[in-house]
Amino acid sequence: MAKGEETRQAILSRAFELATVVGVSGLSIGRLAEATGLSKSGLFAHFGSKEALEVAVVQEASRQFVQEVMVPALREPRGVPRIRALYDRWHQWGMRPGGCFFVGASAELDDRPGAPRDALAQACKDWIDELTKAASIAIREGHFRTDLEPAQFAFEEYGIMLGLHTFHSFLREPQSLERSHRAFERLLDSALVRNVRPS
Amino acid sequence: MAKGEETRQAILSRAFELATVVGVSGLSIGRLAEATGLSKSGLFAHFGSKEALEVAVVQEASRQFVQEVMVPALREPRGVPRIRALYDRWHQWGMRPGGCFFVGASAELDDRPGAPRDALAQACKDWIDELTKAASIAIREGHFRTDLEPAQFAFEEYGIMLGLHTFHSFLREPQSLERSHRAFERLLDSALVRNVRPS
Repeated sequence: MAKGEETRQAILSRAFELATVVGVSGLSIGRLAEATGLSKSGLFAHFGSKEALEVAVVQEASRQFVQEVMVPALREPRGVPRIRALYDRWHQWGMRPGGCFFVGASAELDDRPGAPRDALAQACKDWIDELTKAASIAIREGHFRTDLEPAQFAFEEYGIMLGLHTFHSFLREPQSLERSHRAFERLLDSALVRNVRPS
Repeated sequence: MAKGEETRQAILSRAFELATVVGVSGLSIGRLAEATGLSKSGLFAHFGSKEALEVAVVQEASRQFVQEVMVPALREPRGVPRIRALYDRWHQWGMRPGGCFFVGASAELDDRPGAPRDALAQACKDWIDELTKAASIAIREGHFRTDLEPAQFAFEEYGIMLGLHTFHSFLREPQSLERSHRAFERLLDSALVRNVRPS
């Protein structure tokens, strides 16, 4: 990694940490200058604008998500083991202090059209595509019913995770982890081949 | 209704409309003064502080939710018809312009401890209790399995609705309505007595 690239990466790691605490909108170049000890003009040279910084932070979050959630889960065997691994690592990602970056940022950027919102929506869609693909593979592996719709499975999986975040972080419901696990097991169970009922 | 109470109610209706557009945090007494044509000092006399105004807006949202969603749904027959009515009206509430007040406000107030956050979390919990109660009644009516856990049903129902909001409002996924309906039908189906499989 070239020196300039290394510096940019170090700044982005710090910016991402900050954004999980203060939000994407709360992340200013001034605040990042304080946190990194770099000059505001130096940071402007790296990012050009607050908006470009926000886009870069979303991309950094995606990079970390791919590294921590997707890459290790995709090493698991195709089918149900991989679906479980994707879910478990996704869950761990969301349970870190500050919660899930993507859930928080979606709420913030929802009403703010622009490049940061587009980058974030794309990151979420890429993830949903990955969940959908894993469900398709589970059908091909003979684990899931052939009449299961992979995108529907991904939608329901996503809903369970959103429910977990709301019940856990916002409502502080003590049983939220257990509830989300049971919901996921029920969803998985309903998708398995052995559960096809003759109609 | 006394004159003072009537004025307060008119202000609150306007404040609630504004909050669905600019957010609870974006709702200042100055902004409300512009929107109502009343003086800032007059509004201060009604609410006392920005925080008290926020709490009052959350309570107004709850009042409208009870009136538009709960009261008519509770007129439906106990059991599945009532559960469907609660879900359908809840869904209609969230599909109004500006989306669901509670979803937007939860995202905003999540990291802001205080009276408005507490009022909002209480409103969400009250609603979850209502969904839980409706599922309990469906068991007593013989519609739902006796081994169904009502609070688990409510958690999953809530997750589907959150999924709908994210897929519809944030990701603008064209099939989100259909997906959420199918998820709800699947949840309902899995709860029905006729689906108990001998183990």
